[in-house]
Amino acid sequence: MDAPNRLAGQGVPFAAMREEDIMSVIRNRGPLQDSRVILGPGDDLAMVRCKSGQNLLIGVDQVVDGLHVNADTMDWDRIGRKAVHRCLSDIAAMAGLPLASVVSVAVPTGATRLNIEALCVGLNAAADDWNTPLVGGDIAIHRTDEGPLTIAVTVVGTPHAVGAITRGGGRAGDLLIVTGNLGCSMLPDGTGHHLDFYPRIEEAIAAADTFGTRLHAMIDISDGLGRDAGRLAEASGLQAEINMNRLPRRGAATALDAMRDGEDYELLLAVAGDTEIPASFEGRGESCPLTIIGSLHASDEGSGQVNAVTADGQVLDGSAMGWDHG
Amino acid sequence: MDAPNRLAGQGVPFAAMREEDIMSVIRNRGPLQDSRVILGPGDDLAMVRCKSGQNLLIGVDQVVDGLHVNADTMDWDRIGRKAVHRCLSDIAAMAGLPLASVVSVAVPTGATRLNIEALCVGLNAAADDWNTPLVGGDIAIHRTDEGPLTIAVTVVGTPHAVGAITRGGGRAGDLLIVTGNLGCSMLPDGTGHHLDFYPRIEEAIAAADTFGTRLHAMIDISDGLGRDAGRLAEASGLQAEINMNRLPRRGAATALDAMRDGEDYELLLAVAGDTEIPASFEGRGESCPLTIIGSLHASDEGSGQVNAVTADGQVLDGSAMGWDHG
Repeated sequence: MDAPNRLAGQGVPFAAMREEDIMSVIRNRGPLQDSRVILGPGDDLAMVRCKSGQNLLIGVDQVVDGLHVNADTMDWDRIGRKAVHRCLSDIAAMAGLPLASVVSVAVPTGATRLNIEALCVGLNAAADDWNTPLVGGDIAIHRTDEGPLTIAVTVVGTPHAVGAITRGGGRAGDLLIVTGNLGCSMLPDGTGHHLDFYPRIEEAIAAADTFGTRLHAMIDISDGLGRDAGRLAEASGLQAEINMNRLPRRGAATALDAMRDGEDYELLLAVAGDTEIPASFEGRGESCPLTIIGSLHASDEGSGQVNAVTADGQVLDGSAMGWDHG
Repeated sequence: MDAPNRLAGQGVPFAAMREEDIMSVIRNRGPLQDSRVILGPGDDLAMVRCKSGQNLLIGVDQVVDGLHVNADTMDWDRIGRKAVHRCLSDIAAMAGLPLASVVSVAVPTGATRLNIEALCVGLNAAADDWNTPLVGGDIAIHRTDEGPLTIAVTVVGTPHAVGAITRGGGRAGDLLIVTGNLGCSMLPDGTGHHLDFYPRIEEAIAAADTFGTRLHAMIDISDGLGRDAGRLAEASGLQAEINMNRLPRRGAATALDAMRDGEDYELLLAVAGDTEIPASFEGRGESCPLTIIGSLHASDEGSGQVNAVTADGQVLDGSAMGWDHG
């Protein structure tokens, strides 16, 4: 990394930077020169290899009051569940098998014993539900009243027998498929799917079982379909075409909502073009629909482009359709 | 866990509770019924077993502005280093071999690009130094100006060939040994050892190599020798006797400071009583002294007691000599 005093924009408030610029600051360190690191930063999870040859998936995700949840109005057990489910959605995105999790919590000074007990119930219940027992943790109490509830969940898992499914394995001609429905995850009162979703772990394993090596790439849709499709396309060196008319929508969502709303936690799959796609997978207690929404193509205009085709044939820039968690 | 509304003290502000009570709330879930979990919460790290038989150590530790660091006065690269070193100290405490790490950061709105770049330099440098490459992360920006810098580092590793060294393996008659020097870790201006220490990973591996199965138990001293010795003794079902006159002291530390000051990040070892103890181990660039400070004994008065014997033969309650990180 360059010495800090030679960098432009050093005085810029970090909060004013775009998410992509933030990531470029964080990832500005060159490739990791460590043969144990099979997949470094940049995908849904990293993968490292133990000396025994065992590969391990690992990733962290956080939930911060004011950003992802509202600790004043929401039940803390639901907050705990969401924190675990968000992180497990990344395991699903790689078709990984959950192994264990750890959590760190920074607690506001005003939190009560009841709050923390509810939080622990939610964290443990979600972790146990998904076979990812919470085996360790750390808790700290903020010194100031304004320090917000901050929960970081780390999950470790092992790859499916077909290997970890990355964002970058898509091929020209692949079908783009989504699980479930998209858009309107957060209702005006703050409740909705974003709190009550469950991670698509079983569906991801079903996809790896069913499609095998024909499952080329996968990502979970957390920042809006358009943006996340752009990430998959870019990592694959391709462009995506999405037929907005085909998008499976949640509740009152319009096609545009389905393209750009965040926190769907559905999966976007790239599967070889000549594959027979079932209408659904059996998930946790209910069948999970699969919808073909578009395809991947070789790109003349640079990889990562998303051509979002409207019902009347207009082509919009889909890669900008997304949502900043902050 | 009991239903929340049947619990006593439900309205008590969490911040007013004692650390041990907080832990009892968090751990109030019964033993984990999962054969993959070899060591659950309660030691320095947890250990889980992959299907292949590979055992894996995992733990998380956090650094919060106002509690462990001061983000207004300290260089952020040192804060990053400390965050990684704190977590690696837990790997040392188990005599583990580092594998990889992930980090989540919640950033105050006032942070600049330069701050974040410095933080990333420190995080990556420390992780690389200790062979624990940072393979993933998550960053969020608080919504309010008062949201403090919060860094959670998770580390994974593998156990030494002699197995993971827990807190609970101590036996009556074991020698208690500390690495390095104790006390006065934080200087009045906020600098000092607590920022610049390095994790005793190599010394811990040397101890496991040298003592083999005679190394019965180990813990890192982060909350004060007295309190951490009490934890080791309690986990081992024994009591500890510590000769305060023998404590190796840092700078101006008194024997009492050495018993109770926090953030030493040295190791406390319990080694079979008839073992020959070398004067030092070769560590990272300098020799690390080993000092026999006491022993473990069967306990009539309940396990976890620490008899701290002063120079003039007084016996003090050592297990209360410690420091709350909050």
